[in-house]
Amino acid sequence: MLIILEKYNYSEALKIIEERLQSLKLYYKMYEEDEKKIIVVGDKGQTAELDSLQSLPGVERIVAVTKPYKLVSRQFKETDTIVNIGGVPIGGGHFQVIAGPCAVESKQQLFTVAQEVKNAGAVLLRGGAYKPRTSPYSFQGLKEEGLKLLAQARELTGLPIVTEVVDIRDVSQVAYYADMLQIGARNMQNYHLLQEVARTNKPILLKRGLSATIEEWLLAAEYILREGNNQVVLCERGIRTFEPYTRNTLDLSAVAAVRHLSHLPVIVDPSHGTGKWFLVGPLAKAACPLGAHGLIIEVHNCPSEALSDGEQSLTPHNFQVLMKDIRELKRVCGKS
Amino acid sequence: MLIILEKYNYSEALKIIEERLQSLKLYYKMYEEDEKKIIVVGDKGQTAELDSLQSLPGVERIVAVTKPYKLVSRQFKETDTIVNIGGVPIGGGHFQVIAGPCAVESKQQLFTVAQEVKNAGAVLLRGGAYKPRTSPYSFQGLKEEGLKLLAQARELTGLPIVTEVVDIRDVSQVAYYADMLQIGARNMQNYHLLQEVARTNKPILLKRGLSATIEEWLLAAEYILREGNNQVVLCERGIRTFEPYTRNTLDLSAVAAVRHLSHLPVIVDPSHGTGKWFLVGPLAKAACPLGAHGLIIEVHNCPSEALSDGEQSLTPHNFQVLMKDIRELKRVCGKS
Amino acid sequence: MLIILEKYNYSEALKIIEERLQSLKLYYKMYEEDEKKIIVVGDKGQTAELDSLQSLPGVERIVAVTKPYKLVSRQFKETDTIVNIGGVPIGGGHFQVIAGPCAVESKQQLFTVAQEVKNAGAVLLRGGAYKPRTSPYSFQGLKEEGLKLLAQARELTGLPIVTEVVDIRDVSQVAYYADMLQIGARNMQNYHLLQEVARTNKPILLKRGLSATIEEWLLAAEYILREGNNQVVLCERGIRTFEPYTRNTLDLSAVAAVRHLSHLPVIVDPSHGTGKWFLVGPLAKAACPLGAHGLIIEVHNCPSEALSDGEQSLTPHNFQVLMKDIRELKRVCGKS
Amino acid sequence: MLIILEKYNYSEALKIIEERLQSLKLYYKMYEEDEKKIIVVGDKGQTAELDSLQSLPGVERIVAVTKPYKLVSRQFKETDTIVNIGGVPIGGGHFQVIAGPCAVESKQQLFTVAQEVKNAGAVLLRGGAYKPRTSPYSFQGLKEEGLKLLAQARELTGLPIVTEVVDIRDVSQVAYYADMLQIGARNMQNYHLLQEVARTNKPILLKRGLSATIEEWLLAAEYILREGNNQVVLCERGIRTFEPYTRNTLDLSAVAAVRHLSHLPVIVDPSHGTGKWFLVGPLAKAACPLGAHGLIIEVHNCPSEALSDGEQSLTPHNFQVLMKDIRELKRVCGKS
Repeated sequence: MLIILEKYNYSEALKIIEERLQSLKLYYKMYEEDEKKIIVVGDKGQTAELDSLQSLPGVERIVAVTKPYKLVSRQFKETDTIVNIGGVPIGGGHFQVIAGPCAVESKQQLFTVAQEVKNAGAVLLRGGAYKPRTSPYSFQGLKEEGLKLLAQARELTGLPIVTEVVDIRDVSQVAYYADMLQIGARNMQNYHLLQEVARTNKPILLKRGLSATIEEWLLAAEYILREGNNQVVLCERGIRTFEPYTRNTLDLSAVAAVRHLSHLPVIVDPSHGTGKWFLVGPLAKAACPLGAHGLIIEVHNCPSEALSDGEQSLTPHNFQVLMKDIRELKRVCGKS
Repeated sequence: MLIILEKYNYSEALKIIEERLQSLKLYYKMYEEDEKKIIVVGDKGQTAELDSLQSLPGVERIVAVTKPYKLVSRQFKETDTIVNIGGVPIGGGHFQVIAGPCAVESKQQLFTVAQEVKNAGAVLLRGGAYKPRTSPYSFQGLKEEGLKLLAQARELTGLPIVTEVVDIRDVSQVAYYADMLQIGARNMQNYHLLQEVARTNKPILLKRGLSATIEEWLLAAEYILREGNNQVVLCERGIRTFEPYTRNTLDLSAVAAVRHLSHLPVIVDPSHGTGKWFLVGPLAKAACPLGAHGLIIEVHNCPSEALSDGEQSLTPHNFQVLMKDIRELKRVCGKS
Repeated sequence: MLIILEKYNYSEALKIIEERLQSLKLYYKMYEEDEKKIIVVGDKGQTAELDSLQSLPGVERIVAVTKPYKLVSRQFKETDTIVNIGGVPIGGGHFQVIAGPCAVESKQQLFTVAQEVKNAGAVLLRGGAYKPRTSPYSFQGLKEEGLKLLAQARELTGLPIVTEVVDIRDVSQVAYYADMLQIGARNMQNYHLLQEVARTNKPILLKRGLSATIEEWLLAAEYILREGNNQVVLCERGIRTFEPYTRNTLDLSAVAAVRHLSHLPVIVDPSHGTGKWFLVGPLAKAACPLGAHGLIIEVHNCPSEALSDGEQSLTPHNFQVLMKDIRELKRVCGKS
Repeated sequence: MLIILEKYNYSEALKIIEERLQSLKLYYKMYEEDEKKIIVVGDKGQTAELDSLQSLPGVERIVAVTKPYKLVSRQFKETDTIVNIGGVPIGGGHFQVIAGPCAVESKQQLFTVAQEVKNAGAVLLRGGAYKPRTSPYSFQGLKEEGLKLLAQARELTGLPIVTEVVDIRDVSQVAYYADMLQIGARNMQNYHLLQEVARTNKPILLKRGLSATIEEWLLAAEYILREGNNQVVLCERGIRTFEPYTRNTLDLSAVAAVRHLSHLPVIVDPSHGTGKWFLVGPLAKAACPLGAHGLIIEVHNCPSEALSDGEQSLTPHNFQVLMKDIRELKRVCGKS
């Protein structure tokens, strides 16, 4: 950790800082550069305990040297983690496609879509049973009935299922039915929920919060790994920016960055990332040579009647066309 | 609702749209403007059911005419709502100051600060017992012990207490001790939590999510009012922008906007809004003539040793100086 | 254009609006939906003249139906525009790579890099002679000397050159030397400069401003086309967001959106878009299947000694490796 | 300057860095903290020359210790600068209000508004003769005719005038007529324009770019001061964020921050900052106790017919009401 003091009047601050460092038995050295004092502290990552030093008049800022996350970092584990979801591997040299409807709406809808996405080459089925909705007046999901339908769709198609859990009280119920638990963007910093899903020992799909920095996203994953569960797949799904044309701004640089910083697999959600069905294909294809480990895509048998997210859902036909292009790209990118 | 069709190829979309509108028995009229078709639909706010029409090739966009929130709007209730927290009114012509430490750390710390803020003129005591922290390695709060200390501080000072609830399983426990329940920025869209705190019938302090639009914030409040609890105080605490100098960007325009759009009281948190103690005073003072209904301010007896947010906490002395200025401003702004 | 009036008190506003519409001889119709009045105006895109109606108490908002740009839109011209830069086509089925140093620093540096990027397969040479720098204390470019070196590098390699013009007084000088004029992100809304470069009839590379919406970007291009110059290549180079890890957030969705909205070619700048050399490759490769028409990449023979942007420059070796992958991707994506 | 090296493989980077530091004759020291190497360099602010070291594999990041601006900083000059515009002082203990129409539209409009704002207590007259407009189809200003009208309005009212210059070729013309030259948000990083206006020795009103950080804004001012002109007034006018309700997000924290970091005066533009006339008053009043040195406000005699920005313009009556409140606030805040 580095503490940088302002040019003027730092003697009082300095005294307090030295006392704190000494009481914490931390090793430190001091420098002067351009008339500013710099204190280099060997804090073994205990920055948190010293952050409050910033409140001292005379302290310009504190710079963390050590990254705040550990278990998720490539420093901690150099090789790619491969997550196993009911026999389907995500991570490493694989590029996998998860697909299905935004929300489970009915048996007929789910089974149709499930069969279609399976035929087109998807390896996991997605579908929301509990839907967090911005408006209390929107469709909130079929709840346990939706989970049961998902389990039936799995039997029908053989595809493992991933579905979102929004309420800490539903964790064991969702874990009973699902192969992988999804933490949605709104819950990325719902830390108790992260801890509870971690403890199910199921694989977790952790979506990036819509204004979460890469560091905060990795720290959310750290909450899960710290419970002893390293079966985490990260998912970039767009961040909130000033651009109104797209629902969110899909941050593909973050995917490349995560590949550099962490050993965890990371996939891309071009459906929420763009919010427009005709942009899903281009962004989905971009994700493959980028180095992502896969995609999660919303497919609906009749998007114009979907109870949620119809405007960003592909028809089974468009999904099939996309999967053909993806197969070509996987080949040339050396992905399996 | 308005449906705008693109110039070209809309006959197929048009047919599907008309069928949907007819099956929903909605009244509509069509227009042509600049070679685009515009459909005006009398949907009584049922936009959600029709949003998926955006997925039709040929539909350019759908424009909602009716605001998606109802109970929180000034259209629904013209006069200011005044929320009563253990006898302290927030809203209308009042300008009230809530103060206290970020986190409850110890009896000595809490009691000292509580007494100081009371003496300086604060009318409610804040203090976190459950702390949502970005890093799993940071101090997570004293939990129930913290709540008990808060209750004791209330007895000591007579100040009602407000504290955050982060876990739906703790709602009744927190409600047992606290006079007002705080929903933090990270949980603004944790809808089940909103519903549970609403059902306690306690007053709720609803912080704006750090990338929530004003509309999303009001919709979160709508979740609470819809449960029959209209004792909601909104709190602007800064949004996330590109500016790195301040922790967040305090959006005071949003406060003025909320005054226009809603009958609910709205207060300002300049501590989280700026992240720097020396910016708290100027922004706190700005909030009064702006039309906010009050402030929530972090005060710590020794900011440089605080276990969280020390860098943005005022000393009791600085808080006292600020309160003197606030009193003058209240007078000239005609606030009580 | 649509004018939406608030539920209450719109009779006064209505009277003023009708007078304005009648005096402008515009055709309009009125509707009532959910107790709001909606006025549909056949304004032939004259929205600008009516925007001020928003100031009337009672007017909730004005919705433009017609897009504000014309000449750049796909409605105006359905087929892709192909821009010709000294014999090199950009647009349509081509995927072209522009490369070179951020700034021209010396003859030796420029010639080395020019030869290397040509050998690796670049078809245009980039290099800054006039550098807009955030700090007045940073290297500001070699100016005309730099332009002369670029012209010599063109002779040496046969590569046409693209370079930035930052000052309206330098337009003819830069146009004298360069094959394509670049408008940088900071000048995207420097409208007089856009008009002047347009009048040179040279091809223009128009970078997106770092907080420009897609619509504003296309309107900036409209300024050029309106002067009779349709040789415009758009360039996405990252937008400013809250994410601190990358210099900017490369908005690849915007590229796909521009392909949908406009006939102009659009390329990607992963160097400025990410600000980190090790992220350039992944994002560059993503641009190809995305549907971009090419790339502009910073290459430096010794990045660690570059006078600007060294941290985001590729070495000639890394560029060569990247170009090999790009060739494979072009083949599978059917690009020439 | 601090150079932080990654844990692994930094021996190669280290060798190159040491050679560079030695060749630049810079004094440095090395540290090891948590298995990372930290190099503290006494660079006297020459960071720019070393930034490219970030391109070395093994370098994690470079931290500037010295602020990149000098002349504008409080370190350089501790006391507030007071700018004199035709006898009107801005800065220090003054709180001044500039007002007038967005654009000069006609003699009648300008003279009416000028007289009204003078009567209400404004001390400077604003009005645009050259208007930078997002669309080429919008009203672009009366140009020199507008400047002449402004000069006449000054004679009529005695108010000095401030008007925007957008083209470097018009600088001397605008300087001939105006008392203060405004650099608009779009031109904040048009460095050649900054240098030219600086050389007129007229006072400059420097608006913050709509996505400029505070540091970039101060660096833009540094470009002006470096030409020997310290008559610069900064103006916060809102930044671009995700919030769609307001035109921009007025960043009042930045005003308080600038007061801390710089000796230059800083005023607030609530008209552009909010984009809605009914939000102008609340934000204008907030600016006074905040510590701003004044306001710039758009006033139009008939906002609903304004050729630009009508929706955010106050009527003369509303302006008068606001000024009455401002006078009260100035008194209680001890401003003259």
